[in-house]
Amino acid sequence: MSFYDQLKFDANGLIPAIIQDQGTGRVLMMAWMNHASLEKTIATGKTHFWSRSRQKFWMKGESSGHTQTVKDIAFDCDGDTLLIQVEQIGAACHEGYKSCFFRSVEDRGAGFKTTEPQLETPERIYGKK
Amino acid sequence: MSFYDQLKFDANGLIPAIIQDQGTGRVLMMAWMNHASLEKTIATGKTHFWSRSRQKFWMKGESSGHTQTVKDIAFDCDGDTLLIQVEQIGAACHEGYKSCFFRSVEDRGAGFKTTEPQLETPERIYGKK
Repeated sequence: MSFYDQLKFDANGLIPAIIQDQGTGRVLMMAWMNHASLEKTIATGKTHFWSRSRQKFWMKGESSGHTQTVKDIAFDCDGDTLLIQVEQIGAACHEGYKSCFFRSVEDRGAGFKTTEPQLETPERIYGKK
Repeated sequence: MSFYDQLKFDANGLIPAIIQDQGTGRVLMMAWMNHASLEKTIATGKTHFWSRSRQKFWMKGESSGHTQTVKDIAFDCDGDTLLIQVEQIGAACHEGYKSCFFRSVEDRGAGFKTTEPQLETPERIYGKK
């Protein structure tokens, strides 16, 4: 039975993909895929997503060079979420952090703190706009 | 500045929460929270979610006993996804696996395989329905 038959894309034809660094176990980001970007991810071995804000197909790292090489694609019991193991080049976050989850809650929600170093500035990654 | 001010709930008032086992780094599940379930999670230290299919507030483990004790709550650069570190009692998945992501793609999407042992059967967890 095909893997695709197990999946449930949402009303917009999308499925969330959690991206995890295979070496460290760090969760790097979550982004959305449609059927075409998932096929492209499997065919090329590099993660491709669908941007909901830009309504655009994109390859992770296409402008930054921070690509993700796919090592494993898992899916959950309900078939409505993907968990993809990758090797991440550079920072996964467009703000220059290894992981997009670089801030954590403090004081029971009253505040938050930054929990990891910024590896690069967005200006260095993408150049001056 | 409050942590809540950083978050963007979707059109249905929901935000996805990735649940990760703090000890092993295993991603256990993804589920959805509304503002009330997030507040309850922070107040009690146990994960609470909003079920989209049942339209119901629930505490993880309320019928199975497989509760999750919260160790850290992180949020991503866009403020539209949570990453929660927990201590998981028993199986996170209602199908009796430690993680809901117990199947992975094989043969470039043509098939899939089970990647971890089933710890318990659903019948043992929930009793005969």
